[in-house]
Parts: sequence; C-alpha cells; structure tokens
Amino acid sequence: MSEQEAEKARIDLALIHYPVINKNQEVIGSAVTNLDLHDISRAAKTYGVDSLYVVTPYRDQQELFQELLDHWLKGHGAEYNSKRGEALSLVHICGDLDHVIIEVTRKWQQKPTVLATCAQVKHSVIWPYREVRRKISDGECFLILFGTAWGLAQEVIAAGDGILPPIAGTGKYNHLSVRSAAAIVLDRLLGAGMQ
Amino acid sequence: MSEQEAEKARIDLALIHYPVINKNQEVIGSAVTNLDLHDISRAAKTYGVDSLYVVTPYRDQQELFQELLDHWLKGHGAEYNSKRGEALSLVHICGDLDHVIIEVTRKWQQKPTVLATCAQVKHSVIWPYREVRRKISDGECFLILFGTAWGLAQEVIAAGDGILPPIAGTGKYNHLSVRSAAAIVLDRLLGAGMQ
Repeated sequence: MSEQEAEKARIDLALIHYPVINKNQEVIGSAVTNLDLHDISRAAKTYGVDSLYVVTPYRDQQELFQELLDHWLKGHGAEYNSKRGEALSLVHICGDLDHVIIEVTRKWQQKPTVLATCAQVKHSVIWPYREVRRKISDGECFLILFGTAWGLAQEVIAAGDGILPPIAGTGKYNHLSVRSAAAIVLDRLLGAGMQ
Repeated sequence: MSEQEAEKARIDLALIHYPVINKNQEVIGSAVTNLDLHDISRAAKTYGVDSLYVVTPYRDQQELFQELLDHWLKGHGAEYNSKRGEALSLVHICGDLDHVIIEVTRKWQQKPTVLATCAQVKHSVIWPYREVRRKISDGECFLILFGTAWGLAQEVIAAGDGILPPIAGTGKYNHLSVRSAAAIVLDRLLGAGMQ
C-alpha cells in the first residue's frame, strides 16, 4: 500500500467504555484510561487511521478527557511533546456508538462496515484480516470496535456486521490488553508487512 | 507453528531502562512503568515467550517493582485476577543487560542472538522478521531488546548482533509506545499469522 493510498484509507476506530463486560460477564461501564488514548492514538496515527472515537456516556468522563486532550493539543503538553498532540488530534469523544456511526457515515458519505474485536469467537460473521486488508486498500469504509474492561458486550458485537478473528497467540492464554490488541490489529490490516 | 513448538520457543525479551535516550538524544535512566510490565508480559505470555527481563540499575526501582510483582503473584492481586499473575510470572528484574545475557545463556545452554528494536534504521545489521521467525521456529535462541523513554542508547544497539527492522506504518509518524511495538513484534515473530 503506498503512502498516498494509506493516507486516504477510510478506517476509523471506536474504543467502547459502555456497554462492556466485567470479569463476571456482567454488562458495565468502564472508566476511560489515560494510556489507552495515548497508545491507541499513537498506533492509529502511525498506521494512517482517520479517527479514534472514544465512546462513553458519562459526562464527567467526557469532561475529564477533554481536559487531557486540551493539555496535549493546546497546553503545556503541546510544547513539551508535539508528537503526542499529533496523535491525540485523531481522538473524538462521543456519547454512544450510534452517534459514531452517524458521524462516520456523514464523513465518508457511506455507511461503514462495523467490525467488532473480541478474544473469543462469538456467534457472528468472521471477517479474515486478509480480506478486510484488501477491502480497505480498495477504498472500502470500515469502523473497528475495541472493548475496554473484559471486552465488548454481546449486544455491541451483534449490532455490527461481524468480527475480526480473535488474535491467536501460541497457547491458551489470550489476555492481551486492548492497547496491545489494537496495535496488532492495525499492523495486520494496514502495516507494510514483514520486511 | 504448533502449540508444542511455540511453548518450547527459545525467545526472551529485555525491557531496558538504562541506558536509553531522552528526546534530546541524551543518555538517561528511565523510571519503570507499571503498565509496561502488565502489557508486555501479557503479550509475552500470549505468544509463548519464556521470560521478560526488566533491566534497571536503580535499587529503589527494583524494590518497587518486586512489590508490584508480589502483589499480583502472591497478594490480593492474585486473588482478584489470576491472569495477571500468570503473565507477570514471566518477569525477572535485573541490574544490567550483561547479567541478562549470562542468565539466558545459562538457561538455554547457548548464547542468544541479541537483537535490538528501534524506530529508525541505525548503523547495524538488519535481521528481517521473516528470517528471525524461521530461526525461532528452528529452535534458535533469541533475546529481543526494547527501549523505554525515547529508545535504546546507541551503545546497547551496537553491542548486540543487529536490529529488527523499524515498524513501518503508512506515513512519517513513527512514535509507537514500547507497549504497542512489543505487541506488534511478537505478532510478527510468533503469531499464527493473518487468519
């Protein structure tokens, strides 16, 4: 994929804080984590993703993270390290996933294919990485969902168009952080490949 | 790579806190970061890495992180979430890289090939991912070095056997967190590939 093509890739990410599940499989809302925004926006910027939507319905969380963004985009953080602002400029805070889909559809003038990520295979259509990579390269529009806490609630997965295959390591342990999972997914979908 | 082979893979990671560079390219020692240990050990455990050596010469940092490990391996953390302990059991704290190499050589009865990671191409031999992946699969022994702060000091890179290619995104921005970079490198070297 050439740099020009990549810069035009119509791919967005959404990091979901509600509804997600806790370790007892109960639906909860999670707190926004500072480092999730830094790490995932830096990976998104590296791989030419258009936007990272941070989804939380909680007003106090939205305000807290708007302050964080302002620090790095306009405040002392911008002077200290402008590279953080470059990445965080991709972040938009949103109240729910429906609004993200409306915004993405408006932006690309096309409804995105919405794919969830999860650590286990769920009852959903599986979209192989290679196929999604090719479609992105062909200019198709994708919104990839990542869950915080113990992962996306089933209702979010079911409402999308399918899932990406769970990231298979080499044993039974499959407890990557969402930051690591997002980096790996972007490398598989948008990376220059194994030089 | 079968699960059995992966479990026998002779690969270790070292996360270096001294000597690394700051944003002005000066050699410094960095503070150990809680989430580095969690994220990188979870990725290491997922991909069947043997050990993650956390390298810092600072005694207070060593003690602080031994307390963190004890919390998750033996304390309340172990009761709350045993999956964290499973990953953190791979972590060993070490004073310098020479001791890591001695320990790894003793463990595998063979001196490892030591490869550094960096965001730019340095004056060093570049080992393609595909080649290292094949050699790991053939049972060869590797120690992969990751730098904190703004990356590994040149003396660390020069002392090793070479570098892995910098992770190429799609534009000029190459400021991945070390947590993201480690996840991507492990997926390239040990992952099951793009299903």
